[in-house]
Amino acid sequence: MTSSFSSDVRAAVLTISDRCSRGDQDDLSGPAVRQLLETAGVSVVAAEILPDELDLIAAALRRHSATAGLIVTTGGTGLAARDVTPEATRQVCERLVDGLAERMRAEGLLHTPLAALSRAVCGTLGATLIVNLPGSPSGAKSSLAAILPVLQHALDLLAGRTEHPAASDRNQHGSGPQVE
Amino acid sequence: MTSSFSSDVRAAVLTISDRCSRGDQDDLSGPAVRQLLETAGVSVVAAEILPDELDLIAAALRRHSATAGLIVTTGGTGLAARDVTPEATRQVCERLVDGLAERMRAEGLLHTPLAALSRAVCGTLGATLIVNLPGSPSGAKSSLAAILPVLQHALDLLAGRTEHPAASDRNQHGSGPQVE
Amino acid sequence: MTSSFSSDVRAAVLTISDRCSRGDQDDLSGPAVRQLLETAGVSVVAAEILPDELDLIAAALRRHSATAGLIVTTGGTGLAARDVTPEATRQVCERLVDGLAERMRAEGLLHTPLAALSRAVCGTLGATLIVNLPGSPSGAKSSLAAILPVLQHALDLLAGRTEHPAASDRNQHGSGPQVE
Repeated sequence: MTSSFSSDVRAAVLTISDRCSRGDQDDLSGPAVRQLLETAGVSVVAAEILPDELDLIAAALRRHSATAGLIVTTGGTGLAARDVTPEATRQVCERLVDGLAERMRAEGLLHTPLAALSRAVCGTLGATLIVNLPGSPSGAKSSLAAILPVLQHALDLLAGRTEHPAASDRNQHGSGPQVE
Repeated sequence: MTSSFSSDVRAAVLTISDRCSRGDQDDLSGPAVRQLLETAGVSVVAAEILPDELDLIAAALRRHSATAGLIVTTGGTGLAARDVTPEATRQVCERLVDGLAERMRAEGLLHTPLAALSRAVCGTLGATLIVNLPGSPSGAKSSLAAILPVLQHALDLLAGRTEHPAASDRNQHGSGPQVE
Repeated sequence: MTSSFSSDVRAAVLTISDRCSRGDQDDLSGPAVRQLLETAGVSVVAAEILPDELDLIAAALRRHSATAGLIVTTGGTGLAARDVTPEATRQVCERLVDGLAERMRAEGLLHTPLAALSRAVCGTLGATLIVNLPGSPSGAKSSLAAILPVLQHALDLLAGRTEHPAASDRNQHGSGPQVE
């Protein structure tokens, strides 16, 4: 397994922040996430800044899922009243992937105990994987870096590119057969 | 960040146990939790012993959320038929904070593999944070101690006391803007 | 606590795999899981191979819960479109035990980062515990081995065999009173 991506992975990066949306604060996290993805070989085909509004976030997730195999959000995952990114993500996703969120929080805890307060979720909408990252540049980068090594495999499975039967014992996560 | 609390944190401690409720067993966990909170600077404004009855637990959670910013339960988180504290908590909470429950279980696993069987959840009801702890005094204390360092910050966010923009990169959990 | 089981634990092992069900691939995981359980003293009273069909899996879980205290599945926990074992398990379970799934994923991460992609869940249906394992033989075995030490205790609690009050402080997971 490698952390590099095949050339056809298209990603959208959504910065969720009232302040950045109003122009009261520079968006540092979105560009940091974009750079990390591009360095790994992902084509970032869209980047948007949205306010912390559930309906707007859910609509953006649905819209970008039509063209992006990976949607990464940053921000809105905490406990403040207007933090609704996880709610929007749960609303649009058909399946959640708890293990990715657990892995990101475990990584975050190596840097700060506050990582325990992240309500970030990961899930799938059709063949698109949606990943919530924390809002701070450092938290967003370390969380994304923690799961980058498995994202290509996740996207392969979502796209129906499943392993050759001969490789089945390497199929540690238990996923399954060729889609028919 | 510090684990000490500002003076205005008001907490309720609920011991959930049929045996303690009937007087068949002394409540050791409730007082242990109370002492740990008070040592950290929290005012414990209420302490109750309740039987393992979902409706009674849910009603007590709702009632205390009107006056307490933090409600800590102990007991009723296991697999026995009458263990319903997580169900009552899920019923009343608007949002769950999975990372706090994960953190407590990870801490518990350092002491006993049985910690994997805890179904304890944490969540928010309005501006109140509800935390389920295991029923044993030692398990309750170690679980609470594991998350004490981040509770003040969690309560600040719930109460709308969010960080100054200049501190945003320390905002590792990604929460958000001033509530407007 | 010991990892050996009392003689009356009856288990069913379900292999969930389109390929194995069609005979296109040998089922290595089911027999591996069976051997691990039998070595631990569990009577495996049923073993079945099912295709990745939600309704068939849910029906099998319900059917075996009538006679088995433990149902272990292997396969169908990943992100491919036909991976539906977690959905079938969630559909039939009355309560989920997130800590067991977390524990298995944490163990899996020691072997491969792909363990973060497992959507395996554990839950209860009446007095039966249902455990999803990954589909690969090695992943299935290491995940099951990670939780074997606490399964007897879990089954005791589900069956109403709760601890003597004098042992309550060893009751780290917070479960509860004698069922009445």
